[in-house]
Amino acid sequence: MREMHLNLFIFGCGHHRAAWRHPQSAVEQLSDISYYTNLAQIAERGKFDAIFFADWHAIDNIADGPRSYFDPLTLLAALAGVTEKIGLISTVSSTFTTPFHAARTLASLDHLSKGRIGWNVVTSMFDSEARNHGYENMPPHEWRYGRAAEFIEAVQKLWDSWDADTITCDRSGDYARKDGLRAIHHKGEHFTTQGPLTIPRPPQGQPVLFQAGASDQGRALAAEKAEAIYAVAYDLPAAQDYYRDIQRRAKLAGRDAGIPVMPGLVTYVASTQAEAKAKQRELDELLPTADSLRQLGMFIVQDCSGWELDAPVPALPPIEDFTGPKGRYATILRIIETEQPTLRQLLGRLAAGGGHCTIVGTAEAIADQMELWWHNEGADGFNLMPPSLPSSIEDFVEQVVPVLQKRGVFRSDYQTDTLRGHLSLPLTDKP
Amino acid sequence: MREMHLNLFIFGCGHHRAAWRHPQSAVEQLSDISYYTNLAQIAERGKFDAIFFADWHAIDNIADGPRSYFDPLTLLAALAGVTEKIGLISTVSSTFTTPFHAARTLASLDHLSKGRIGWNVVTSMFDSEARNHGYENMPPHEWRYGRAAEFIEAVQKLWDSWDADTITCDRSGDYARKDGLRAIHHKGEHFTTQGPLTIPRPPQGQPVLFQAGASDQGRALAAEKAEAIYAVAYDLPAAQDYYRDIQRRAKLAGRDAGIPVMPGLVTYVASTQAEAKAKQRELDELLPTADSLRQLGMFIVQDCSGWELDAPVPALPPIEDFTGPKGRYATILRIIETEQPTLRQLLGRLAAGGGHCTIVGTAEAIADQMELWWHNEGADGFNLMPPSLPSSIEDFVEQVVPVLQKRGVFRSDYQTDTLRGHLSLPLTDKP
Repeated sequence: MREMHLNLFIFGCGHHRAAWRHPQSAVEQLSDISYYTNLAQIAERGKFDAIFFADWHAIDNIADGPRSYFDPLTLLAALAGVTEKIGLISTVSSTFTTPFHAARTLASLDHLSKGRIGWNVVTSMFDSEARNHGYENMPPHEWRYGRAAEFIEAVQKLWDSWDADTITCDRSGDYARKDGLRAIHHKGEHFTTQGPLTIPRPPQGQPVLFQAGASDQGRALAAEKAEAIYAVAYDLPAAQDYYRDIQRRAKLAGRDAGIPVMPGLVTYVASTQAEAKAKQRELDELLPTADSLRQLGMFIVQDCSGWELDAPVPALPPIEDFTGPKGRYATILRIIETEQPTLRQLLGRLAAGGGHCTIVGTAEAIADQMELWWHNEGADGFNLMPPSLPSSIEDFVEQVVPVLQKRGVFRSDYQTDTLRGHLSLPLTDKP
Repeated sequence: MREMHLNLFIFGCGHHRAAWRHPQSAVEQLSDISYYTNLAQIAERGKFDAIFFADWHAIDNIADGPRSYFDPLTLLAALAGVTEKIGLISTVSSTFTTPFHAARTLASLDHLSKGRIGWNVVTSMFDSEARNHGYENMPPHEWRYGRAAEFIEAVQKLWDSWDADTITCDRSGDYARKDGLRAIHHKGEHFTTQGPLTIPRPPQGQPVLFQAGASDQGRALAAEKAEAIYAVAYDLPAAQDYYRDIQRRAKLAGRDAGIPVMPGLVTYVASTQAEAKAKQRELDELLPTADSLRQLGMFIVQDCSGWELDAPVPALPPIEDFTGPKGRYATILRIIETEQPTLRQLLGRLAAGGGHCTIVGTAEAIADQMELWWHNEGADGFNLMPPSLPSSIEDFVEQVVPVLQKRGVFRSDYQTDTLRGHLSLPLTDKP
């Protein structure tokens, strides 16, 4: 039976850029593991499929607020010990690491967590990140996607370099079957690695591969290799466009089962619409305007610091002429096209989740929207991006999850112990 | 007041190559984090300075027994949550990773553990490891040590790219002082990285740097940069030679405080000498001869499978003509020189700890030897390599530690919360 999937995307004090400025924010605790333990346990109480961490390899605009902090791979190792069932997903940049390192670390995590690991492969985007890793600037998009495809292939070959039953522990004979592991002799355009891996086959066979491509090449890679997909969709039509395109591409790539697509979702939930609106306004009012204009400038790759706040947003170049990351830019164009917002209204829209779908209302109203997307080729689940942490995710788990459970679209308890199980993905226990 | 330092080197089912063959071994649990949790907690009960993990980047001779398993960095993250005071040290290969990755992961771990991380920098040695990382063979010794020196320098610069008080959390102003972090613009022969790091300054300032060089270049690097040193010494004269050489080199390098040196130590402890001997024999008898001969062959880089077991060991080339890793080879030459063992006796000596000092006896006798080394420029502490886990370390903690405590040479409780504190090393809280 089809089931909705929910991930919690943990980010600083929440996805609203001003969340850390709230008097009750836990901003002083962002270096303390107990903060993340609490969030992971709230999501597990809500029976979420997984928690998810993004990753950046550079610090920009540190004065504006907290961004990344812990290395997400070490953070997941720590959180594996304080959770039991929930999946644990880390972003991994194929541009900055190598298959052997990634395969080894993720296999280690999958053993530590007894089969709960997912990896979200990204190609990264900022020059400041590239320069921390010895590049002069970020390599071209096409080169990065070529590397990503080879990266995924090599990582999976390394996991497959061990059979599941290689270790036999025969005390009076051999510790392992010598023919249960083998070199892979990978030699590609970007990587050379001999194998086998130093660690036995992960409990899941292969940890679950997430991908989030929005560009043509990103979608092609996702359709070919991803086992679940993060998406950006500001409304149902946008979600459907993406969803149908991905499933069409997946079919063309010869994959018969659909790929679960999980758009980002920002929710403000309260017992009345007015109260939910007030929660949103409370955060929006904490937002310094200069900060938001700078963020918008990054998204559209032009300086908008001199623009008039209460006038309509000036016309932006069409997407064909835009050379930066296209996903978010397309969303901004769509918001401008459908809502004709003033600059101030656009900033408010972008301040939480940066153009991801935002729903403000009662638990019933939010569940209605989620179901609408879920029934109509908009989403198989959602990547929750709570504007404020922990309060927004507590609200969601306490108020929205029970509604979804009562309607029978979301699990009332975990039925399996692995992320692959939660997502109803086929096992990969044999190479 | 000078204090003895003790680390527990955790390795598979123990450092005796046959430990996993024992009927009571936990060999089936090596992929279960609870096995390592138990060992770390035993060491913490014994008030050890730290637990320590080696690291290999290839699997050889898997049939002979378990070797590495988890990636040690993820393992330390998991163990940080189930311990409170004990230091956590991982080996890091400067030949296979880059300063940015290492600095970020180790800083993350130092935050997770609230200041308990150490890193043991190695240059790795086997061709099979090199081939997993895109090299055709292991690069030359000199090149590797040049890279290691630059690696350490760049990692420490990245940690120093943040001041300790950068994050101010001013809710109505800036999250951080912009001038509290800065690019490092590192550009060397081996690495280029711009900085700053993505994560605030570690609680220890810089995690504690261990090193274990035995070659001339290794000793030079250790004397110049290490904050604590692992050594291999089969007896007190060998330990003193090394110890005095390191302190002399450190002084020449302009370092006024001595560097704590911790040789490996294998102990079999019981309430009588005969009982301790029986424990050693029990493990030795589990050892398949062919397996030991293969290991010896690796150490001396020649095939000795056809040698006569009960005849004296044939003459080996002098160390000047030996091209492999020199530390262990020198020890083997010394054992042959001083003990004139048969091949069988040499194999027994090497089966646990591979030529590290081995003491078999009562707690008092073992404490006597440890004190002798500690008082006479042989050691500032020891890197315990229990032949069988957990039994040998339980024996040590229950029997030897109380003797050392009663004699006033080892702490009765932790006086600090950080590894730097346990080792009485100066803080590095300002760049």
